[in-house]
Amino acid sequence: MKTYLDCYPCFLRQALDAARYSGADDDQQRAVLLLVLDALRSLDPASTPPEIGDVIHGIVRRETGAADPYAHAKKEATQQAVALYPRLKALVVEAPDPLGTAVRLAIAGNIIDLAPSSSYDLWATVERVLDQPFAVNDGRAFREALASTDGILYLADNAGETVFDRMLIETLTQPVTYAVKGGPVLNDATVEDAVAAGLDQAAEVVSTGSDAPGTVLRLCSAEFRRRYDEAQMIVAKGQANYETLSGEGERLFFLLQTKCHVIGQDVGAPQGSIVLKQGSDSSSGGR
Amino acid sequence: MKTYLDCYPCFLRQALDAARYSGADDDQQRAVLLLVLDALRSLDPASTPPEIGDVIHGIVRRETGAADPYAHAKKEATQQAVALYPRLKALVVEAPDPLGTAVRLAIAGNIIDLAPSSSYDLWATVERVLDQPFAVNDGRAFREALASTDGILYLADNAGETVFDRMLIETLTQPVTYAVKGGPVLNDATVEDAVAAGLDQAAEVVSTGSDAPGTVLRLCSAEFRRRYDEAQMIVAKGQANYETLSGEGERLFFLLQTKCHVIGQDVGAPQGSIVLKQGSDSSSGGR
Repeated sequence: MKTYLDCYPCFLRQALDAARYSGADDDQQRAVLLLVLDALRSLDPASTPPEIGDVIHGIVRRETGAADPYAHAKKEATQQAVALYPRLKALVVEAPDPLGTAVRLAIAGNIIDLAPSSSYDLWATVERVLDQPFAVNDGRAFREALASTDGILYLADNAGETVFDRMLIETLTQPVTYAVKGGPVLNDATVEDAVAAGLDQAAEVVSTGSDAPGTVLRLCSAEFRRRYDEAQMIVAKGQANYETLSGEGERLFFLLQTKCHVIGQDVGAPQGSIVLKQGSDSSSGGR
Repeated sequence: MKTYLDCYPCFLRQALDAARYSGADDDQQRAVLLLVLDALRSLDPASTPPEIGDVIHGIVRRETGAADPYAHAKKEATQQAVALYPRLKALVVEAPDPLGTAVRLAIAGNIIDLAPSSSYDLWATVERVLDQPFAVNDGRAFREALASTDGILYLADNAGETVFDRMLIETLTQPVTYAVKGGPVLNDATVEDAVAAGLDQAAEVVSTGSDAPGTVLRLCSAEFRRRYDEAQMIVAKGQANYETLSGEGERLFFLLQTKCHVIGQDVGAPQGSIVLKQGSDSSSGGR
């Protein structure tokens, strides 16, 4: 997905948020803001939003000296989600359609995203998403793809959301490779965060080798790219994976909530929608 | 009021909004955005938000060639408000405390503000504001000042809001000078807009001589500054007048809704509050 002009104000806001998560004082926040203004002025407008996000969060880390501004928020979200595990598991086991419920829970968990906003109500979101009609629903193609694949590459998004992904992974019969970020960015899950959520008990946890938001393939490790290229079916969670990979073909399935109107517009759904969307070959993707 | 770092993302968003109101195409919108990034990079951080807004809206007008991007929106808002005049008048006349109700209506009309957001529900706002407790209420000082003044300088804000101001002006017994912008900016009222709303039937309508948002005194005409300096009591409507004049002394009374969290923070009230606040001498103001 291209970067829309409406993303620019949001980048500035996100940089300020990240600086504050880092404990930056007013002067540091101002320094971050000015550097981000420079970066936005000079960046290739053909970049995807996560490619620009990568630069911005690099600026925040350098200026504030905080290697992982969201460390505390990630730990807290993971603990909160792990505590919900039994309740979530019961919802899936007792559902008439466990796979359908597990897909909805995986999407519900996508609310744990500190990029568009600093707050959310987790359980209210679970209850909403369990009943909410899909704005885009390629569930049929998703089930068909599942029926014929030998394994799944699952591209994770945020810490805590991991536990909700585990619900879906444990419902699948095929082996799953769970790919997380190669280093801290926003509240995205790293290997450490995924292990803290117990994902290593449900899947093989691997790193993409990149700490850019989403999956910017040119920034990922050769090892991850091999896995990516060989994958028969890919489940990609959240907005940033959609932004970087939406044009990367039909073996990809995006599970997300549209948490800003720009993504909503691109997906073709109002803000606040739930989406299960099959990828296409129609755009340039994140290569 | 100083410009907070949180205002920067909002300036970008506002520039895009204004470019779109101007009918700018994608290339023009991008050009505006890049120029605004430059301007934000180099502007004096001690400027008030309306001083920065003045530069930004100048960029939009130059780049798009649209002298008055909000002309249609202003006309529409004025017509809508004029149509409500009899209903609003009845509310005041039938109220146990006509002055109190007229103050609330003047504040309700402040929702007609296209700077923080492009949409609002006018009548729902009227009903809300008629009942809503004030977050800041210097009503006692306001009534005392009214009891001892020979005349009032009333600093207007937006087109359409003018009709709500008229409710208050017609409740006052002193002569009122109604000061509007010297040229188009955002949906702020100019002399033409005020006359279209019938304000010349209730007050002497004058221009500040400046097309900056709010009242940036150093940009106003000598004639207006003379009136300002001589005024015994000043009623200032809306966020931008608060931003430029909050430190200009106790003869000022600010009537507004807090439509963003930054103003809310500065006023000491949550976003969405109604405020009747007396000015102070505590900050540098807009000189």
